[in-house]
Amino acid sequence: MGLKLDLVVASRTLAEHGVIDAYGHASARSDTDPQRYLMARNVAPELVTEEDILEYDLDSNPVDANGRAVYHERFIHGEIYKKRPDVMAIVHNHSHAVIPFACTGVALQPIFHMSAFIGLGVPGWDIRDAKKGTDLLVRDAYLGEHLARALGKHPAVLMRGHGSTVVGENIQRAVGRSIYLDINARMQLDAIALAGDDRPIVFMDEAEVAANVSWQNYERAWELWKKKALARLAQEAAR
Amino acid sequence: MGLKLDLVVASRTLAEHGVIDAYGHASARSDTDPQRYLMARNVAPELVTEEDILEYDLDSNPVDANGRAVYHERFIHGEIYKKRPDVMAIVHNHSHAVIPFACTGVALQPIFHMSAFIGLGVPGWDIRDAKKGTDLLVRDAYLGEHLARALGKHPAVLMRGHGSTVVGENIQRAVGRSIYLDINARMQLDAIALAGDDRPIVFMDEAEVAANVSWQNYERAWELWKKKALARLAQEAAR
Amino acid sequence: MGLKLDLVVASRTLAEHGVIDAYGHASARSDTDPQRYLMARNVAPELVTEEDILEYDLDSNPVDANGRAVYHERFIHGEIYKKRPDVMAIVHNHSHAVIPFACTGVALQPIFHMSAFIGLGVPGWDIRDAKKGTDLLVRDAYLGEHLARALGKHPAVLMRGHGSTVVGENIQRAVGRSIYLDINARMQLDAIALAGDDRPIVFMDEAEVAANVSWQNYERAWELWKKKALARLAQEAAR
Amino acid sequence: MGLKLDLVVASRTLAEHGVIDAYGHASARSDTDPQRYLMARNVAPELVTEEDILEYDLDSNPVDANGRAVYHERFIHGEIYKKRPDVMAIVHNHSHAVIPFACTGVALQPIFHMSAFIGLGVPGWDIRDAKKGTDLLVRDAYLGEHLARALGKHPAVLMRGHGSTVVGENIQRAVGRSIYLDINARMQLDAIALAGDDRPIVFMDEAEVAANVSWQNYERAWELWKKKALARLAQEAAR
Repeated sequence: MGLKLDLVVASRTLAEHGVIDAYGHASARSDTDPQRYLMARNVAPELVTEEDILEYDLDSNPVDANGRAVYHERFIHGEIYKKRPDVMAIVHNHSHAVIPFACTGVALQPIFHMSAFIGLGVPGWDIRDAKKGTDLLVRDAYLGEHLARALGKHPAVLMRGHGSTVVGENIQRAVGRSIYLDINARMQLDAIALAGDDRPIVFMDEAEVAANVSWQNYERAWELWKKKALARLAQEAAR
Repeated sequence: MGLKLDLVVASRTLAEHGVIDAYGHASARSDTDPQRYLMARNVAPELVTEEDILEYDLDSNPVDANGRAVYHERFIHGEIYKKRPDVMAIVHNHSHAVIPFACTGVALQPIFHMSAFIGLGVPGWDIRDAKKGTDLLVRDAYLGEHLARALGKHPAVLMRGHGSTVVGENIQRAVGRSIYLDINARMQLDAIALAGDDRPIVFMDEAEVAANVSWQNYERAWELWKKKALARLAQEAAR
Repeated sequence: MGLKLDLVVASRTLAEHGVIDAYGHASARSDTDPQRYLMARNVAPELVTEEDILEYDLDSNPVDANGRAVYHERFIHGEIYKKRPDVMAIVHNHSHAVIPFACTGVALQPIFHMSAFIGLGVPGWDIRDAKKGTDLLVRDAYLGEHLARALGKHPAVLMRGHGSTVVGENIQRAVGRSIYLDINARMQLDAIALAGDDRPIVFMDEAEVAANVSWQNYERAWELWKKKALARLAQEAAR
Repeated sequence: MGLKLDLVVASRTLAEHGVIDAYGHASARSDTDPQRYLMARNVAPELVTEEDILEYDLDSNPVDANGRAVYHERFIHGEIYKKRPDVMAIVHNHSHAVIPFACTGVALQPIFHMSAFIGLGVPGWDIRDAKKGTDLLVRDAYLGEHLARALGKHPAVLMRGHGSTVVGENIQRAVGRSIYLDINARMQLDAIALAGDDRPIVFMDEAEVAANVSWQNYERAWELWKKKALARLAQEAAR
């Protein structure tokens, strides 16, 4: 399965899990040219097909758009690919449970082993620190670079009032991390309510995080997501 | 696509998102006569087809009902269209996360950029201030006018014990705002729980709101919603 | 549409809304003999067809079971029909948001106009007051009668550790009330969180409740639910 | 219906209820050899078919894998079957509402009669007490045996940062308990919020628990789940 089809599977899986709705996008670094990345034209992820996937250079110029509109926030992707040669895939999303953390500065911590990567650190980013009075969208390379710096070496960055951006060494990891970031946020919110002022919450410790992130690739989940996405694609084609 | 089909798409999209159930309604000002508006006969939004859409004058008399029953609360629509020439579409809904705000007087604030319009102000309205002992329904022009005054120049008004009414310069904006009003309420509730008594919640500031509402039309979402609603309509027709 | 089909629609609608799962049951007083009621044999509501509907006398003996198993808790229905000649339909359910109220003694109050009937009073019942050491099921006429007394003249009664029983003057009212009882509980829980210790929650007042319950029959909703349930039945028949 | 098909029904039912996602697994002790158990190869539960079910000895060696990959955490199953001759079925899951309890040490208590088995005691287990610095997975017999000891004679054990493992005298009981463990956790969390510092929560008492668990087999639910799972299997086969 090629990268384009992988991105179709990623987009539809993220929509199916409510991690993105009509907004948000998944990208992958080109496997033939590390100075390029692949991402859909401006279309809702749930509708993406292979024909919608365009190639962009790292300044986020589409190479082959042929007049098709592109995402305003493509700079998120290009600027991170520039700074992070290890990153091969990126998901930008608006998942609902994460925003309240981004807006209160409560740190996400790994409460669930499927979300162990959170233990590598998930910094917050407030676009106001880069520029005041924006519409909160990462509309240019300056803002993208600022966000990429806040991400640093981490697997994800929270964006105040907006959502998060999640990276991985491959597509399935970026997708799996996006889904389990949201689930961890929901569990942590519930744990905070349960714990009240008296009880500590036991999170994964550093050694546990390290032991988990070394191999966690969401393989079994990816197999399921792919199978379901391909079945939906076949159904659409049959209409 | 004509206004009638747009209203069918709007009704089914709102039901799909749980913003309305069997109740609530979407209307649009006529594009040929600004003294008229279009809205379904008395039927659950999920069942609306183009044939169900009637025309009303601004006193909310149906022009072409031919004996078909109409919504009791049509005065919400007529009275707002009278007072707000800028408004071209209205959604009245009972979305679940919003009612607790309406009943406690906690102000909704824009915590999520897709809901930036909340920063333009979402006043509350208590029907008791207009009339005591009602069943909470806006059953006549007097109550509709009173609600329209509470709405004022704002994009939405909360209705105590009832829901909200959301307006826009076009249908997709009224629909998108209705969906993201509910999502913002859920996120804000979670943020309040997270913040406790100690932490501030960072909402969008005035300049950010202004920068966002100037263009936010929910275009990409509308394209998705339309496609899904039309597919469902085709499926129903094929039965 | 006959009563049997109405009960099929009721059962499937309640399951669709998550108000009952494999458990819970809906009944209706016979329209030919007020000393009889109709209810399914022992089967999950989501699977009920007209052929599953049996007739019971008010002591909850099935008249025509022909060896088919019946619900252990049928006495809930028979004993209420005995005491309440005005009641024509009953739903017993385990809806999730209601149980926490039943177990803490926090009174449900009408926060939403679709749930105005709550303002008529929803008492709580603890089976321990009737008998200690039960499995919480209403397995005999003694327990059923005790519950019916706790219900009194009200539209619903909460059952500690178990769920609720909801009554109405017709099936659609018993179904609608069951659905909106759960929704009101969820909204009230959220309002309590929002209000904290400082803010009052504004519920519907007595006059508002009276004005609403006088006519609320969930007609538009019932039309939708019927249409959807019949479509599912047709689909099953076509398999 | 044979055990293999029962496990297919169990796997798909657990996925349908959100109790497991791509992870988690259900097993059954062989009905011909109590020193063996049946469980799927390494595949997402939602995809399991009868062909995927393998046989394992109680040291968790697959007998007939023919090169197919097996679950890393199969030792959970083998070690419990060794220690608990009464146990005929086991579900390991990651259900979301349960983790916050596992991480805060708040004891799950039976708030709902469908979840009465919780009153038999649901101990917590922290893998750190067995070994530090793991990835939280039960990857060997040592960890499995340690977990089995924490489970003791109880119906379920919570696993910190991970989920839970639930046992039963038959498959439907292990499945039903897994589903109602999650539901009970959600209800208990809501009850804790409602009760605040002032009100007690009334849980089932010991006698009530004993009266309930003596017979609760989730029979009516199992009939429903089986019917739905078989319908989905037939649909897949028809593609």
